[in-house]
Amino acid sequence: MAEKRPLILITNDDGYEAQGISSLVETLKDLGDIVVFAPDRPRSGMSCAITSDTPLYSKLVKKKNNIPWHVCNGTPVDCVKLALNEFIDRKPDLVISGINHGSNAGISVLYSGTVGAAIEGCVFNVPSVAVSLCSNQSNPDFSTACRIARKVAIKVLEEGLPRGVCLNVNIPEGEVKGIKIATQTQGKWVNEYYKMQDETGRDIFRMTGNFENWEDNNHNSDEWALANGYAAIVPVKIDMTAHDFIPHLQKWEFQEICSQ
Amino acid sequence: MAEKRPLILITNDDGYEAQGISSLVETLKDLGDIVVFAPDRPRSGMSCAITSDTPLYSKLVKKKNNIPWHVCNGTPVDCVKLALNEFIDRKPDLVISGINHGSNAGISVLYSGTVGAAIEGCVFNVPSVAVSLCSNQSNPDFSTACRIARKVAIKVLEEGLPRGVCLNVNIPEGEVKGIKIATQTQGKWVNEYYKMQDETGRDIFRMTGNFENWEDNNHNSDEWALANGYAAIVPVKIDMTAHDFIPHLQKWEFQEICSQ
Repeated sequence: MAEKRPLILITNDDGYEAQGISSLVETLKDLGDIVVFAPDRPRSGMSCAITSDTPLYSKLVKKKNNIPWHVCNGTPVDCVKLALNEFIDRKPDLVISGINHGSNAGISVLYSGTVGAAIEGCVFNVPSVAVSLCSNQSNPDFSTACRIARKVAIKVLEEGLPRGVCLNVNIPEGEVKGIKIATQTQGKWVNEYYKMQDETGRDIFRMTGNFENWEDNNHNSDEWALANGYAAIVPVKIDMTAHDFIPHLQKWEFQEICSQ
Repeated sequence: MAEKRPLILITNDDGYEAQGISSLVETLKDLGDIVVFAPDRPRSGMSCAITSDTPLYSKLVKKKNNIPWHVCNGTPVDCVKLALNEFIDRKPDLVISGINHGSNAGISVLYSGTVGAAIEGCVFNVPSVAVSLCSNQSNPDFSTACRIARKVAIKVLEEGLPRGVCLNVNIPEGEVKGIKIATQTQGKWVNEYYKMQDETGRDIFRMTGNFENWEDNNHNSDEWALANGYAAIVPVKIDMTAHDFIPHLQKWEFQEICSQ
């Protein structure tokens, strides 16, 4: 009996109509059996959000080159959960999310729905990858990002990933010098809102802001790699425990707890 | 000149009308100047989600005992961002989120809006704490959870927290034997959906599920502590880099990258 082809689940947070996911499907389609399960509309910034208060539903919107495209009214994490719980009859060999239109480097790993989907794949113990193109252009060229996504997908299919670790891949625009394995740049967004008034005179706030990099000179960081023409791969772990701080915290003395 | 009282920002993910946040405000009000900035409706499961596609607005809904209660149409993270960017003129000494109605132990740290808000406080380098009561009852007794939240708040105000680390506090129902410093239990939710049909016959899926604990016998884990009558404090870090896996990943050979 022939060995089964790898099963690859593809999702994103820009919604199923985004160019990035079509490009990703196109570039990976010969590597295995592809299933697309993506949000029915843009769901950027959804992090690992889940939908618990309203029902989810999905729809098979097209089947092209034998690839089913399911869309779902939920978040990227909902898409992965629903696909793996209800719509896929074997465990995928790879969950890949993207290609996101915009950077998910640095602290954005916390907010990104693209990364959220990869984290969810990782929760299911499936090797999982998020891919983002760091472009602010309205119609960017995804071709280099696709080539890098393909290289990473091939390696992950060959090598696997350890339980609890997924990959966050960010690709700069233009010529790419190579791929750097990197750390999540420490820093934060500042001046995050643009304040304006709505038609009733009420203050309303739109997201904007700049990333303040707290480690400009850290050549191991993902922001450094991107600023210097490299694609950055950060291994991301889903155990958020600050293990190093536990011994210190154990010295804190709490007064007696009484429940009455 | 008298020293300023500590400034404490309180938020949650169950919305400003939830019992848990009122209880928390009541129990902390003598510890400092309190500002409430909370979602205008329940936003459970929002993780670190941010609202980038629609404008945010807020409203001062009441001022009781000199404590302003602002509500916002955004997620818990939006509340913290908007409060700290636009509504608070000095850096708080503590961000505290809760008291959530339901557990945020184990893998739920990834999905929880309550924890998301504490993570965002931590991004701002403010000592930050998420507090959850592990109860499925519709009208639980928050009194023990309040006493523990107060003890933790006092310690954090005294001791501070290292940059990049916040606390995820979960409290069991009933009598509490003490407080354990714990790790995030590894495991995942299984059987996550209840499938039914809507009025048109379409399949719809509602979240349900059970937590599958992969380390039942780990006495250091938060789920073990809770199952054995202890409150659990997990230090959570916002650097998600899997530092240990970097040396391995650096050995992966990628074929030459060419951008054309």
